[in-house]
Amino acid sequence: MTYDGRHLLADLYGCPVLDDVALVETALRAAADSAGATVIGLHLHHFGDGQGVTGVALLAESHMSIHSWPEHGYAAVDIFLCGARHDPAAALDALCRHLAPTRISQQLVRRGDI
Amino acid sequence: MTYDGRHLLADLYGCPVLDDVALVETALRAAADSAGATVIGLHLHHFGDGQGVTGVALLAESHMSIHSWPEHGYAAVDIFLCGARHDPAAALDALCRHLAPTRISQQLVRRGDI
Repeated sequence: MTYDGRHLLADLYGCPVLDDVALVETALRAAADSAGATVIGLHLHHFGDGQGVTGVALLAESHMSIHSWPEHGYAAVDIFLCGARHDPAAALDALCRHLAPTRISQQLVRRGDI
Repeated sequence: MTYDGRHLLADLYGCPVLDDVALVETALRAAADSAGATVIGLHLHHFGDGQGVTGVALLAESHMSIHSWPEHGYAAVDIFLCGARHDPAAALDALCRHLAPTRISQQLVRRGDI
């Protein structure tokens, strides 16, 4: 077995539109596609007009999530993928093409000594 | 606004039972309760008999997830909570009461400079 769990945490600042559920869904699907990951469920919640969105994609390879605070132009992203052929950085690039942050802070954490 | 985003990543080893969807759901609900968090959706996927389970709780305060590899006694957990009154450590304690790991490796990441 090649587990190779990689968990990328990214803070996205300066995003112009973060209260749009369809945009969050599109960004998550594009991220999964870019990483070659398989979506087994996608769940979205909008906290109200002009308010934040939570989106989580359940993947065969773990999960991806976006939580947004439009009033701050801020989105918290995590991309957790197992399997060496799935690239969290490619997923983040795809997300950023849709969410258009002006600044990104990120941290990659290796998961699971198995 | 007090954002105070805290993201706890925990690797749980030596868990005796990790192919039980009901147990994963119970663990996630107990974790949310212990942190005083509000579940707005709970999604589970079982990869097959004797195989792993993915469980994700969407929260008003962000999310929690469990991905399990029963063949290794290993579960990857993340607990992402915003708001100072919600304690990720309490949530992890509750999870561990149900999943019963013999060893835990954990890392707390502060999220979002907003």
